[in-house]
Amino acid sequence: MTKDRLIYLPLGGAGEIGMNCYVYGYGPKGHERLIVVDLGVTFPNMDTSPGVDLIMPDIGWLADRADRIEGIFITHAHEDHVGAVGLLWARLRAPVFARNFTGLIAQQKLETRGEHPGIVNVTGPMPEMVEAGPFRVGFLPVSHSIPESSSLVIDTPAGRIIHTADFKIDRTPVVGEAFDDDAWKAAAAGGVKALACDSTNVFSEAPGRSEATLAEPLTELIGSAKGLVAATTFASNVARLRTLAEAGIATGRSVVLLGRAMNNMVATAREAGLIPDFPSTVPVEEALDISRENLLLLVTGSQGERRAAAAQLSQGKYLGMDLREGDMFIFSSKTIPGNEREVGRIMNNLSQLGVDVVGDGDHRYHVSGHANRPDLEFMQDLVNPEMVIPMHGEHRHLREHARLAKERGRGSVIAPNGTMVDLTGKRPVIVDEIEVSRTYLDGTVLIGALDGVVRDRIRAARNGTVVVSVIIDEDHEVLGGAWVHASGLPKVGGAGIELTEVIEEEVEKELSRLGRKVLRDDDRVEDHVKRAARKAAQSEVGKKPEVAVLISRLEGE
Amino acid sequence: MTKDRLIYLPLGGAGEIGMNCYVYGYGPKGHERLIVVDLGVTFPNMDTSPGVDLIMPDIGWLADRADRIEGIFITHAHEDHVGAVGLLWARLRAPVFARNFTGLIAQQKLETRGEHPGIVNVTGPMPEMVEAGPFRVGFLPVSHSIPESSSLVIDTPAGRIIHTADFKIDRTPVVGEAFDDDAWKAAAAGGVKALACDSTNVFSEAPGRSEATLAEPLTELIGSAKGLVAATTFASNVARLRTLAEAGIATGRSVVLLGRAMNNMVATAREAGLIPDFPSTVPVEEALDISRENLLLLVTGSQGERRAAAAQLSQGKYLGMDLREGDMFIFSSKTIPGNEREVGRIMNNLSQLGVDVVGDGDHRYHVSGHANRPDLEFMQDLVNPEMVIPMHGEHRHLREHARLAKERGRGSVIAPNGTMVDLTGKRPVIVDEIEVSRTYLDGTVLIGALDGVVRDRIRAARNGTVVVSVIIDEDHEVLGGAWVHASGLPKVGGAGIELTEVIEEEVEKELSRLGRKVLRDDDRVEDHVKRAARKAAQSEVGKKPEVAVLISRLEGE
Repeated sequence: MTKDRLIYLPLGGAGEIGMNCYVYGYGPKGHERLIVVDLGVTFPNMDTSPGVDLIMPDIGWLADRADRIEGIFITHAHEDHVGAVGLLWARLRAPVFARNFTGLIAQQKLETRGEHPGIVNVTGPMPEMVEAGPFRVGFLPVSHSIPESSSLVIDTPAGRIIHTADFKIDRTPVVGEAFDDDAWKAAAAGGVKALACDSTNVFSEAPGRSEATLAEPLTELIGSAKGLVAATTFASNVARLRTLAEAGIATGRSVVLLGRAMNNMVATAREAGLIPDFPSTVPVEEALDISRENLLLLVTGSQGERRAAAAQLSQGKYLGMDLREGDMFIFSSKTIPGNEREVGRIMNNLSQLGVDVVGDGDHRYHVSGHANRPDLEFMQDLVNPEMVIPMHGEHRHLREHARLAKERGRGSVIAPNGTMVDLTGKRPVIVDEIEVSRTYLDGTVLIGALDGVVRDRIRAARNGTVVVSVIIDEDHEVLGGAWVHASGLPKVGGAGIELTEVIEEEVEKELSRLGRKVLRDDDRVEDHVKRAARKAAQSEVGKKPEVAVLISRLEGE
Repeated sequence: MTKDRLIYLPLGGAGEIGMNCYVYGYGPKGHERLIVVDLGVTFPNMDTSPGVDLIMPDIGWLADRADRIEGIFITHAHEDHVGAVGLLWARLRAPVFARNFTGLIAQQKLETRGEHPGIVNVTGPMPEMVEAGPFRVGFLPVSHSIPESSSLVIDTPAGRIIHTADFKIDRTPVVGEAFDDDAWKAAAAGGVKALACDSTNVFSEAPGRSEATLAEPLTELIGSAKGLVAATTFASNVARLRTLAEAGIATGRSVVLLGRAMNNMVATAREAGLIPDFPSTVPVEEALDISRENLLLLVTGSQGERRAAAAQLSQGKYLGMDLREGDMFIFSSKTIPGNEREVGRIMNNLSQLGVDVVGDGDHRYHVSGHANRPDLEFMQDLVNPEMVIPMHGEHRHLREHARLAKERGRGSVIAPNGTMVDLTGKRPVIVDEIEVSRTYLDGTVLIGALDGVVRDRIRAARNGTVVVSVIIDEDHEVLGGAWVHASGLPKVGGAGIELTEVIEEEVEKELSRLGRKVLRDDDRVEDHVKRAARKAAQSEVGKKPEVAVLISRLEGE
């Protein structure tokens, strides 16, 4: 009989920022009972995932072992932790555990995808603990940029794990629970085997700042504005919304929430009883009767999302509201790397309207929700774990975080997605590498990132597309030449003739050279036609397009 | 007879960073004699210009008036100022003027595109002046991040213009001419009508730092490294290359230049006599015999360019060199907004190799080549122009720069690409708006950004592509149904059947409903087939693909 072991396996979030999904297991090798921490999404982009709607972890490994899953624990309600619950639950079918607010959001995700919201078990914070096979799991409140964020305290027969999830050290977080040093000391008091810890801000060298530090500069800024003021931040940052709303009201403005996510988050936080004292807001219809200099709009779209309120306001009207010369637009947010172009486009559109844009350049009007390097050091000292498992971060963040831990004399390991780590002994040991990819929601279908679907789209976008239709009759003779359609290619090339005509001519020349034996074989015909078409395009316009060949055989009609 | 007027018309670079091209004109309205300042490129991206090779200004307006162009003046050898000379010159056919080093680069660009390098007239710095119709133009040396950068002093019957081009105030620039306060004072002494001024760094509030400040921190950093060190920066930043190379030699390392652009720039700078004292370098073949800890590689690819040396090293070998655990990679560069993803990918790949990556996060190992806000103020005070024309910057930069000028009591105007400004009077007046687009080099063909070619590629990338082939015989009857090819779409949708089969079936159903009158009309057949195919895809996979219909008519054979 093999000995029981304690394993850690990230399926998303380790080696990237976003799409968090971590697995812990305990039991004999290959028979471990499992718990899942978070089921998040990440967002597509034109470079790597054009046309994709959402990106999720590849949970194939987990789905193959669904009978061994004791529970799915959601740490907080950010999309990159809860966003895939609705889409992936059907493949796991284990109970979901979350605190109240997070649970409400998880239920919305499940309902949207036709799953029963009762799957979610709303769980209180520690000392309440969930029994999950060999695990006992408690939600330990921690500060972050969304209400009710929690770390997980995971008790196993091999010792206690603390999985921080996303966090910062904020003792005055404006909304939600302050970082509670005593509660953390108590959780760590009996000894902690492993601290699985947020790595996103490991390169930020200054200590993190509290949400509460923003009230003064934001009130001053909004107070200085002459016209209408609009401000954007993540809709889920309810504390920021409150700070902004209070700044608006303090400077004599009515506050309007614009954008679906904004309204939903505030309504859900109210429903969860988290913001009984949130400043009163005005529906947008009423706002149209209020003079502009007395309005503060809180709008969605801080990352430049194309259909969000910020983008729409920058291009004209949104629900009857518009921005004009002399108005002010505040980005109370950080532009996530990769979104600079989209955010820049909105800033420039606003500039064209004559709006004063206050950007995120100097960090005066935004604080991060993640622990910076000194905060990570503080956390290590507070918890004093045997080992630190850096998670949630790109490879370079994991690497730097592991170095930080080792410098402080702790065991550590760089374990990107798919790396199975044995935590049973004194030091973490890599014991397996699982092949993990990503799962795409594409329209209404889930596809694998490596299925070739998106690769074909990227190729079409880079190279253009040529389609050639060839008809072959009952006698294996080509009927009527070749019909060519080109898309995403210059209409006319070097010869001054339509590109499609040139390709048709070259393909027909090639077809006329083919013997009957070749013409019986679709693959060989396709091959010859493709080469002829590509060659013609290359010499005419200098591009090698993707070529599809449609062979219509009239035999057997 | 109309009065003579002095006009300014940006065709590129105003409302964006990159792709500089500015026109000045003097004469009766509609008959102004023209000069062109810079012919630059900008670089494509997957979001807006997939598959495109290079982006250039739309010079249609200029080409229509080519007979009125007196000269093309190139301020410096950065791609966004000289990169389009080879590709666009044939449409303008006016003499090109540039200083020695810039001229050598311009000649390379012309030769590459089959133009005669003799088109370039190498011109000395002021006091030399070029007579160009009603204009007299002098090259006034200025500091920037490439050797021999020059502002232009443009004398016109309506007064003197100083066109800064890209610049910084650097009195110790390591390579090339230091900012010469006296020369600038002299140029401004007789009064300056308009200062057309670089806007890129208007939001940077600290005064710019000199290139010379980098020697110490870089020497310290490289000295601290245990293994091989590689560093990247723009190949054209010859001063930085020198600083890095000297830091390498000071710490006992042999210096290797890796990458075509790096070698070409240094060779050209040598040819121009600008760096007789550049540290000696070692060819890469010899470097293979030197122990790793005694090597410094200077490599191309600071912006994450896919085929450059940095990207190749991060993925394995480049010309026999590789990077390993314990090596160091320095980004002595700023990541240009929009390139974060590509640069991040390289950093993470290097991290996976075990390389210590020193990023651009804290600006310790890089200084900008552009004037920050205090430097722009200094420049305004130094030149004391009647008006300031903000150029080279996104709309928000132009707007902020115009405000800066107005706050200081000067006339100003926000004039993005296509805005014709009359500079004749005391204040700038917008007199016309020219429609300007962009020109793409796509393969070997120049196409317009609005031609629809790239739009079709983006649509294919977002939505996938379906091609339907229909054969209609002599009697206007459909022969053998429909052949469907799908690309960039999930293979199987909700029904569990191949998507192409479902589409074929639906298209065939639709075709069977069409009367002979419709079947005679290609457009109507196409319309029906498209709708049926799109509807089938939408219901199967939740996407509305681009549909191409190939109708093969067998009549008249």
